[in-house]
Amino acid sequence: MTSATLQLACALIERPSVTPLDDGCQDMMIARLQAIGFTIERLRFEDVDNFWAERGESGPLMAFAGHTDVVPTGPVSQWRFPPFQPTIDDGMLYGRGAADMKGSLAAMVTACEEFVAKHPNHPGRIGFLITSDEEGPAVNGTVKVVEWLQAQNKHIDCCLVGEPSSTEQVGDVIKNGRRGSLGAKLTIKGIQGHVAYPHLAENPIHAFAPALTELAAEIWDGGNAFFPATSFQVSNINSGTGATNVIPGELELLCNFRFSTEVTEEQLRERTEAILLKHGLNYQVQWNLSGQPFLTSQGELVDAIVGAIADVEGRSTELSTAGGTSDGRFIAPTGSQVVELGPVNATIHKVDECVKVDDLDKLHKIYVRTLERLLLR
Amino acid sequence: MTSATLQLACALIERPSVTPLDDGCQDMMIARLQAIGFTIERLRFEDVDNFWAERGESGPLMAFAGHTDVVPTGPVSQWRFPPFQPTIDDGMLYGRGAADMKGSLAAMVTACEEFVAKHPNHPGRIGFLITSDEEGPAVNGTVKVVEWLQAQNKHIDCCLVGEPSSTEQVGDVIKNGRRGSLGAKLTIKGIQGHVAYPHLAENPIHAFAPALTELAAEIWDGGNAFFPATSFQVSNINSGTGATNVIPGELELLCNFRFSTEVTEEQLRERTEAILLKHGLNYQVQWNLSGQPFLTSQGELVDAIVGAIADVEGRSTELSTAGGTSDGRFIAPTGSQVVELGPVNATIHKVDECVKVDDLDKLHKIYVRTLERLLLR
Repeated sequence: MTSATLQLACALIERPSVTPLDDGCQDMMIARLQAIGFTIERLRFEDVDNFWAERGESGPLMAFAGHTDVVPTGPVSQWRFPPFQPTIDDGMLYGRGAADMKGSLAAMVTACEEFVAKHPNHPGRIGFLITSDEEGPAVNGTVKVVEWLQAQNKHIDCCLVGEPSSTEQVGDVIKNGRRGSLGAKLTIKGIQGHVAYPHLAENPIHAFAPALTELAAEIWDGGNAFFPATSFQVSNINSGTGATNVIPGELELLCNFRFSTEVTEEQLRERTEAILLKHGLNYQVQWNLSGQPFLTSQGELVDAIVGAIADVEGRSTELSTAGGTSDGRFIAPTGSQVVELGPVNATIHKVDECVKVDDLDKLHKIYVRTLERLLLR
Repeated sequence: MTSATLQLACALIERPSVTPLDDGCQDMMIARLQAIGFTIERLRFEDVDNFWAERGESGPLMAFAGHTDVVPTGPVSQWRFPPFQPTIDDGMLYGRGAADMKGSLAAMVTACEEFVAKHPNHPGRIGFLITSDEEGPAVNGTVKVVEWLQAQNKHIDCCLVGEPSSTEQVGDVIKNGRRGSLGAKLTIKGIQGHVAYPHLAENPIHAFAPALTELAAEIWDGGNAFFPATSFQVSNINSGTGATNVIPGELELLCNFRFSTEVTEEQLRERTEAILLKHGLNYQVQWNLSGQPFLTSQGELVDAIVGAIADVEGRSTELSTAGGTSDGRFIAPTGSQVVELGPVNATIHKVDECVKVDDLDKLHKIYVRTLERLLLR
């Protein structure tokens, strides 16, 4: 027997909603949510479809957040099954978005259907914050919906993001925060000249080496109970005219910090520039903050989700802040508790993306129990 | 009144002999040298014209060496006068090759004409080693002529190369040697990965920084009375995929040593690799020796040239080994004394290349006196 969650997941995967396309996924979700009494606000910004859905009169607002867009398939010929033709094989559901995150979206919708059927007059409010711009530039998606919510004076108390947080089994890991990401484009200025006359030139590659040694060895912080230590990485370095007898006049590099809550963006900038200045470098730097770190160290949401996983799976769960960034970075600054819980992430962004069919139903049950633990207290 | 040297220099400049072309310059020189009793061997290798000329029956062989090819003009519109239309303005002769080294070639030919007219039965022998491949790859030029001379059992005792050695006044500087040049293409291997998971990757940029710091600070030698200290320069460094969130798997750089006679090529290679190994780097290196250092610290040739400059100009001269490489590097290993003496080099390889008209005649006189001092002892 095919579950409602599996059916909806397959229907969503059939839509080739490669970012920033939604391709009708949101219509499908909206129809189901309207049928159980949600009020819908369609929020299209530029070329991006988003919506906000809400049910309940008053009290704490618990929102599900997620995205209908998916990353490109890569070479289709390398897939075992066509990526937009959901296929079940040996207990696994294959298709682009199966794990990231159409399976979660289906489980959120069917969880609400079950919860509302049992508790039509539930206390509190349930919300959905859905975008089709999470895998792309993330400019006209969650950011803009959050602005709209603030303009409406709507405050989310607890937000469950459906990102695939699990590593081996559903619910073995949840993400209760993410590191910040700070990038820099750095230019070191020297004086161009002939290799045979180094005293007339100033080699920016040589000049920068001691500073780079220091930056790479620097301990930016020690991390904390929730975050690993802040890390610094140079991703690109380029200098030289191509000629073997010319000392170049300039060196360019791109670098990136993944940082914990033990250090601020401002401190990283200041400490980096202090090292550059200490080494007497003539430099220009362009900083680019992709996201502040955020953390929901404890509270009702963590308790409810950890409890729900224990109820359904009889297992304890690990709280983690590892990995890249997520749209949680835009929601957390409003003061909401934010936790990510979704299926196993082993195949996301790869060919043959898949999710265990059973895990979709487990996820559905965990989401139902989370709603019960949060709203029926 | 236009001197014979100026006339011949102009005739040579009119030929657009951009490397490796000779464009008839050697024919012009050969006609003049044959007329005064030189025996000619035309030595064309692949697309390069060369010739060897010799006069005299026996005794020490003093050779003039030089090249008829010139570097490209660069943007002709930036020249005050068309580069292949020799033009005299305010006492200066303008044209590509005026200083490097058609002026010298003209002075060599007219010096021999004057010397032979005065001393038709001079003792010793005079030679000319002329190529059109000095400014290019230097593969089918002087190298091949030297091989041919060795096959003929001909040994040059003293070689005067007409490279523009002077800095302010004709003869203020002569080059009695050149530094060696050793290049390397170095690849540092790391492990590619995601910036968010640095513990799973190995950043070759970070790994190389301490070694680069040490290489740039290393004192390779202290130089000596004739050579400045050996220098190390990185000319190009490149690493990165272009993406800001990827730790690259490889770093590539090009570097170059200009080295004195206080250190050998082998020592530089060993010491460089010892530093790389000390820092635990996984690397590949391709070495490329462009030229061994060479030096004519003293002897009849230095004495004759220094004396000739004093005779003509009443000035002392500086012996120098600075600057790039020259074809002298191919002649010196045969055991010949090698000294470079030519006009002021301020404009070589630039737009508006020029030489003082008076300097051509001074150079002619210095070359005549050099022949007299060497051959009429």
